[in-house]
Amino acid sequence: MERVFNFSAGPSMLPLPVLEQVQADLVNYKGAGCSVLEMSHRSRPYEEIIENAEATLRRIMNIPDDYAVLFLQGGASLQFSMVPMNLARRGATMDYALTGQFATKAWQEGKRWGNAVAVCSSKEDKYAYIPKITKEMLSPDAAYLHITGNNTIFGTMYNELPPVGDTPLVCDLSSIILGREFDVRDFALIYAGAQKNMGPAGLTVVIMKKSLLTDDLDEVVPSMLSYKKMADAGSMYNTPPCFAIYVAGLVFQWVEQTGGVAAMEKRNREKAALLYDALDASDLFKGAAAKEDRSIMNATFTLPDDEQTKAFLALCESRGMINLKGHRSVGGCRASIYNAMPREGVERLVETIRDFEQGKRV
Amino acid sequence: MERVFNFSAGPSMLPLPVLEQVQADLVNYKGAGCSVLEMSHRSRPYEEIIENAEATLRRIMNIPDDYAVLFLQGGASLQFSMVPMNLARRGATMDYALTGQFATKAWQEGKRWGNAVAVCSSKEDKYAYIPKITKEMLSPDAAYLHITGNNTIFGTMYNELPPVGDTPLVCDLSSIILGREFDVRDFALIYAGAQKNMGPAGLTVVIMKKSLLTDDLDEVVPSMLSYKKMADAGSMYNTPPCFAIYVAGLVFQWVEQTGGVAAMEKRNREKAALLYDALDASDLFKGAAAKEDRSIMNATFTLPDDEQTKAFLALCESRGMINLKGHRSVGGCRASIYNAMPREGVERLVETIRDFEQGKRV
Repeated sequence: MERVFNFSAGPSMLPLPVLEQVQADLVNYKGAGCSVLEMSHRSRPYEEIIENAEATLRRIMNIPDDYAVLFLQGGASLQFSMVPMNLARRGATMDYALTGQFATKAWQEGKRWGNAVAVCSSKEDKYAYIPKITKEMLSPDAAYLHITGNNTIFGTMYNELPPVGDTPLVCDLSSIILGREFDVRDFALIYAGAQKNMGPAGLTVVIMKKSLLTDDLDEVVPSMLSYKKMADAGSMYNTPPCFAIYVAGLVFQWVEQTGGVAAMEKRNREKAALLYDALDASDLFKGAAAKEDRSIMNATFTLPDDEQTKAFLALCESRGMINLKGHRSVGGCRASIYNAMPREGVERLVETIRDFEQGKRV
Repeated sequence: MERVFNFSAGPSMLPLPVLEQVQADLVNYKGAGCSVLEMSHRSRPYEEIIENAEATLRRIMNIPDDYAVLFLQGGASLQFSMVPMNLARRGATMDYALTGQFATKAWQEGKRWGNAVAVCSSKEDKYAYIPKITKEMLSPDAAYLHITGNNTIFGTMYNELPPVGDTPLVCDLSSIILGREFDVRDFALIYAGAQKNMGPAGLTVVIMKKSLLTDDLDEVVPSMLSYKKMADAGSMYNTPPCFAIYVAGLVFQWVEQTGGVAAMEKRNREKAALLYDALDASDLFKGAAAKEDRSIMNATFTLPDDEQTKAFLALCESRGMINLKGHRSVGGCRASIYNAMPREGVERLVETIRDFEQGKRV
């Protein structure tokens, strides 16, 4: 099979030039005599790789100097615990907005640590929308408000950040980081698993105010879960996920070379509009999320029944488009159209939606 | 530069056939239409990859069915916390043998959780030997005894396992797993970072008695740090480090195809003997570890002064041998000669040791 358009929610498509670069340098990285897969993380060539990755990310996201950038492991799921353990005392109050499955998991992990308050939830409407948050809804003594910037499973995103005032805003940006412009200063802490818009699975990026780094943690907090220890060691408290950082660094360069995050956002909004317009024009397909909260990264949609869903997915696959099945917890279809998904992929999907509606099955 | 002999302690050399295979399949994995770097962990091709990796590891290590195999993140350093959190109640007694820096770190993390007892230490002798452990030295109520099977920094290893009786034996095998035969049944739990003998950094393998898996953990233990949750989800509680597992799976196949762990051990013992014999025959070079406890994976040795050490390392580098510098905490030299280091690499090192002693500097 030729290379396909991979609509997977993550791990997901990487830019072809990045993959080709990785392939070219795989056995002998730029004359270093070894692969990045086997390179000591304390060697000069690797130090350059990780330093360049951080520097490029800082440039493309305009990360201020008073924010630390950490390359960690464990995915967003481990951040669900690191955030409370580092930003809240045991038993303290922490606010959570429940806008989907991962937001809810974050809240549940928060409850292991303290008084994790669900300030809002769209569960009763199957997380099809983003509840509006007002300042009055926040706990006065909350250590932070945790939101999920983009809800991968349900296909929603925050168009505007909630008005938090002095409450630190913590945000899971896993599925939208680098897909849209953000002002890092709006956040106390951002975290994101790499496997959607940044690189392969096995790497988590944390961007946080340096003023929040502290050694004054509860004694049960493992050293590996201390942001301060990771920051002090330049993400090398222990051996980092070297190869994933290397590939992410190449993706950061690709973003920069193709116009930066602003250009990504423009292309992403165009791709999303193309797809949502096709869904809205259809009598058969229906967008699953509230229009005003639609994600530009993950478009969720349904067909009238399972049989038609299956037939549509089969048609897509026959046309070289894979992983369009919705998350196993919700069914239906989902098209993840991250930065690396070319416009051509979305055009082919839109064409297939129209063909399917007109009865074409091959 | 051509490919070098990389004596790094980890990340470290990978077998060339594995790297070539990874390179060949990098952009389009076996006709799947995408790279393993961008493959959904829930897709059929990836399920095959992870299932094959586990099955191959089970075959080459003879892992019994009543042991679970987990593919995790965070390195041995996160295991330092997961082990006590999963195998001991808060405040419980846990025994540790302090045979080096990582053994000591494990003990320190244990102290965050309970009464971590140092049953022995070779610190006073710069960890140059492995203290003998007798049954009487163990705490009667210890949740486990933790040992470090091979001490990467100091170049020592256990030739015989301590007589633990009914006390569960937990062992960090990071730098010797697959390098030597072990009977998994001797251990309650084995863990190992992949980046020495198994694959790239970013993957940790845990092999543990299924009977020790429990949901009855202290509430502060993050879900991500629960062995039971990881086992129940087949290492896919969240997105696993897909690419590192894939590469490790290829390394497991390579071990199997080149004779299995017994053949690896035979070659490793021959390589180590070659090197240690050269050191013992020298008046200039000195092995740093006690002879009876010498590691077959990491040979530590010294020259009379820093100047000669530097000159020797420079000579090695000029001959295509890199990363022979000792760990920054101890100095001197260290040759890590894991499975993927060919005999030819050790022969070249031995020749260079002899040449250097005879005054050759180029």
